[in-house]
Amino acid sequence: MLLRMSTLFLRTLREDPADAEVPSHRLLVRAGYIRRVAPGIYSWLPLGKIMLENVSRIVREEMDRIGGQEVLFPALLPREFFELTGRWTEYGANVFRLKDRRGGDYLLGPTHEEMFTDLVKGEYSSYKDLPVILYQVQTKYRDEARPRAGILRGREFVMKDSYSFDLDEAGLAKSYELHRQAYVRMFARLGLDYVIVSAMSGAMGGSASEEFLAPAPTGEDSYVACRACGYAANVEAMRTSVPAAPSGEHPSVPAAPSGEHPPVTVLDTPATATIETLVDRLNSMSLGRVFSAADTLKNVVLKTRFPGQRDWEPLVVGVPGDREVDLKRLEAALAPAEVAVFEAEDFAAHPALVRGYIGPAALAEARIRYLVDPRVAPGTAWVTGADAPGRHVANLVVGRDFTPDGVIEAAEVRAGDPCPECGAAVSINRGIEIGHIFQLGYKYADAAGLDVLGPDGKPTRVIMGSYGVGVSRAIAAVAEQSHDEKGLRWPRGIAPLDVHIVATGKDEAVFSSAEQIAVELERAGLRVLLDDRRATSPGVKFNDSELLGMPTILVVGRGLATGVVELRDRASGRVTQVGLAEAVPRVVAACRVADATG
Amino acid sequence: MLLRMSTLFLRTLREDPADAEVPSHRLLVRAGYIRRVAPGIYSWLPLGKIMLENVSRIVREEMDRIGGQEVLFPALLPREFFELTGRWTEYGANVFRLKDRRGGDYLLGPTHEEMFTDLVKGEYSSYKDLPVILYQVQTKYRDEARPRAGILRGREFVMKDSYSFDLDEAGLAKSYELHRQAYVRMFARLGLDYVIVSAMSGAMGGSASEEFLAPAPTGEDSYVACRACGYAANVEAMRTSVPAAPSGEHPSVPAAPSGEHPPVTVLDTPATATIETLVDRLNSMSLGRVFSAADTLKNVVLKTRFPGQRDWEPLVVGVPGDREVDLKRLEAALAPAEVAVFEAEDFAAHPALVRGYIGPAALAEARIRYLVDPRVAPGTAWVTGADAPGRHVANLVVGRDFTPDGVIEAAEVRAGDPCPECGAAVSINRGIEIGHIFQLGYKYADAAGLDVLGPDGKPTRVIMGSYGVGVSRAIAAVAEQSHDEKGLRWPRGIAPLDVHIVATGKDEAVFSSAEQIAVELERAGLRVLLDDRRATSPGVKFNDSELLGMPTILVVGRGLATGVVELRDRASGRVTQVGLAEAVPRVVAACRVADATG
Repeated sequence: MLLRMSTLFLRTLREDPADAEVPSHRLLVRAGYIRRVAPGIYSWLPLGKIMLENVSRIVREEMDRIGGQEVLFPALLPREFFELTGRWTEYGANVFRLKDRRGGDYLLGPTHEEMFTDLVKGEYSSYKDLPVILYQVQTKYRDEARPRAGILRGREFVMKDSYSFDLDEAGLAKSYELHRQAYVRMFARLGLDYVIVSAMSGAMGGSASEEFLAPAPTGEDSYVACRACGYAANVEAMRTSVPAAPSGEHPSVPAAPSGEHPPVTVLDTPATATIETLVDRLNSMSLGRVFSAADTLKNVVLKTRFPGQRDWEPLVVGVPGDREVDLKRLEAALAPAEVAVFEAEDFAAHPALVRGYIGPAALAEARIRYLVDPRVAPGTAWVTGADAPGRHVANLVVGRDFTPDGVIEAAEVRAGDPCPECGAAVSINRGIEIGHIFQLGYKYADAAGLDVLGPDGKPTRVIMGSYGVGVSRAIAAVAEQSHDEKGLRWPRGIAPLDVHIVATGKDEAVFSSAEQIAVELERAGLRVLLDDRRATSPGVKFNDSELLGMPTILVVGRGLATGVVELRDRASGRVTQVGLAEAVPRVVAACRVADATG
Repeated sequence: MLLRMSTLFLRTLREDPADAEVPSHRLLVRAGYIRRVAPGIYSWLPLGKIMLENVSRIVREEMDRIGGQEVLFPALLPREFFELTGRWTEYGANVFRLKDRRGGDYLLGPTHEEMFTDLVKGEYSSYKDLPVILYQVQTKYRDEARPRAGILRGREFVMKDSYSFDLDEAGLAKSYELHRQAYVRMFARLGLDYVIVSAMSGAMGGSASEEFLAPAPTGEDSYVACRACGYAANVEAMRTSVPAAPSGEHPSVPAAPSGEHPPVTVLDTPATATIETLVDRLNSMSLGRVFSAADTLKNVVLKTRFPGQRDWEPLVVGVPGDREVDLKRLEAALAPAEVAVFEAEDFAAHPALVRGYIGPAALAEARIRYLVDPRVAPGTAWVTGADAPGRHVANLVVGRDFTPDGVIEAAEVRAGDPCPECGAAVSINRGIEIGHIFQLGYKYADAAGLDVLGPDGKPTRVIMGSYGVGVSRAIAAVAEQSHDEKGLRWPRGIAPLDVHIVATGKDEAVFSSAEQIAVELERAGLRVLLDDRRATSPGVKFNDSELLGMPTILVVGRGLATGVVELRDRASGRVTQVGLAEAVPRVVAACRVADATG
């Protein structure tokens, strides 16, 4: 491939686009890889289209290597497939819905579990047919509430999604491991720095689940990482580490030596509707100890609604007073239920809830669902609301004085929190989700009744896994990780072209030499971009080459008079003077190094 | 590539799908290339997906060869782009429309003229930037009223669309010719038999327009062809050949020697509301000549509505009584206006229209738009309605006794009609539209204000062409042309795989030989399908190989004992016994022949 800047459909921009908040968005637009059509909807220009193909090719090769077979589903999908699993309702406002001319309901597929399940059900019938891994590289749609950051979170985007179908959990574990290995190879070839973190199953149902995150300060996902033992988890999936409870299992078994705690005391705490004022008040009451926010139990009122339900239900989440409820963790824990703020009118409808002084007693009496943080463990004692204005209770012991309805992981996670594996302090980092592997289990097979005849002639339910890679997002993720103030710095595996030849000056010999080198490099199998523009200044050409970000830049210019060209490595910035005769082999060598690692 | 039937995600069907009306639909489903998801919406299974890639690759190579540059637009497009050109309204019920969560209007793109125009406007500004040809291979959407025939007329389908941008008509003509040549090469490589026919511009506006049609009895398009001079045209675009008018131009200039015709006579013709009863009556009236239906002028009442208009307007089309109005020709002639039947209630609202006896006089008086067939030429005389029950007029001369509002090509075309070029009798044939090349002209550039600065520093309006290839449809078109009662017969260029090796019997030596041949053929660069199923009967395997349609079938079976395998050519049915040692080179040779023509 040999592209010439004189005819390439490409115009770089000097100015950042007004709506660009993150480097990948800014640079991909400025360098002419993408153009905005609508919020979260982009067109791919020639260099961007080549990159999409590069990523797709790498993804396909690695999927084929683990025995994946490629299919292609439509994006426009009729409602009936999503009724079986309840997702027509569950998706809520997050999918694009439409009616056809006959009034039939359709959606634009955000994911294709139901379709793959139905397909396998239609074609396969025997245990001998399994296992099978099917995949597609396809345009998907999500009506994001906040499309942002260019192609990092788009509303129309390209994904690889694959699904494994196995006879039993051991088979699923193997298909999952195959995907894990494929993803490791894929992301390495794409030049992505990534971490694998434990993830929540979210709305998908199922068991084991890991995300591949590309660390980047602009990432939307937060994850904890433990240097000591290597534990890493999406913040939503972080398990709170709790000191061993005095006894038994929480919350059904009562705490044993509750005699350790003094009996409940009601305290007069006027004007202490906030944790801060409460702690100050407690410490001014000469109660014989020093209180901190962590000794108080904060009861946060919210409301939830399950998909298809009409009415909202109140939910109270109890967390230590020094922690906030993390809405993303809460939503992940409650999915597919929706969560919303408990408004003033909701409080009006529930007079038992005394704002600022809510306690477990009123919740139990009003039969309001009450879930607590794991730290609010059986046997622990708390200061919390007494359900009357200006009143709190102290020494309220979980399991002795009240029993919550369950435990929920919804409190904010902080850097320094103990690692659930080894107890060391974890760090909190940001990353971009580029892949997700997930043991779906039986959810979709159950909904569709996907069975095969087993060796014993009896129907066996099929167990599934689902695995996704953000193909278009991977380009943005690489850009987030590989750029500098001058522009993009593509790793070799994903770069649209291997080498960018910049011909400078007015000397016709320069242009003909550059052209000859370009042709020879193309013949050697390299993908070449030749800047053969005659009326463009060297400065503009150098800037463009740095903005566009090909890994190798070869400058053919003034040095040619003395038989020298200049080889620039975009990533390291290293510049080498090279004899004209060496130019082609040196460039080929530079590019081949990367291929060998692919 | 080496695929094994033992693991390939493929199940052939013995029964035709209930909804399949045409061979391609029947066979592509039975052979496991596609599966139906909804009306006009299909999934592509592994072999079908490979074919989509094959066609796309050939299309891309030929587009690249003429300097086309590939981009990729979204399918989900905001309304604003289509407001400028009026197509948001024009599209009517033919596009899928939807609203996003903020209430914004979107459509699923059926074509991308507006998007390409806007893109070029955003990037280019100088005459030096032109010409440019941009293309994409993309999933498109049309909410067809009658999706049919599997992927022949789908609602979600893959198209290559390209657009040329030039400075002047000469440039456009060149870009058009480049595309014509690219299409000729493309369709030859795909193994398609095709004709190039003149086409209507339809709703697209513009001038020169040709369609590439694949002749097939199941085709939805009709075209006329003249063996004598080679003229070929879509039936919609067929020009009616009219004997030279006595003088002048129709219809503004009155016919000259109108004295040739006797004066108008009103005839008493009771109960002659049909042409047949009218002709019988005329011939029983001793009027001194024999009348045929072709001597009568039939006035057909319809109604039309322009996009965005609320009310329908009546339209009367006058055609010789021996011809029907062809609705497709009428619609093409009136596009983008809609056409509908004039209902009883419409007649009630227009009492001047006497059903069965409508004549030009009442139309002129009621100012109802009246368009006539070209055969109703100035100076010709007709028997037609007298606007009173049971009454007709004879000797009504065009230009002397009435003047229609214009001419319309809407009468049915018949085999044997004179060729507009040479006068010889044309034939009528059916074909599948697989490509369309079209000189758009200035329509979209005008709407978007797409100018570049000319060499004189003044803005120059850009002239555009648009060019389409039905990528998924091409697969169905090839299947329509290349099949027999046993199954598909893929031409080599488009076939998913080059060779299908069938191993038969229970002998382990057969399977290991077949495996070895398969591996050697793959090493030689061929794409190989190996039927390595152990428990499947030879009959089923042979049937599958004929149904699937790979061009070369190699049978490794009983003959192996005497060192012989069987080479079958799927297209010709020719069977050759080949020594085992020769098998690989013979298969390679058979496949290479085709490559050389590619």
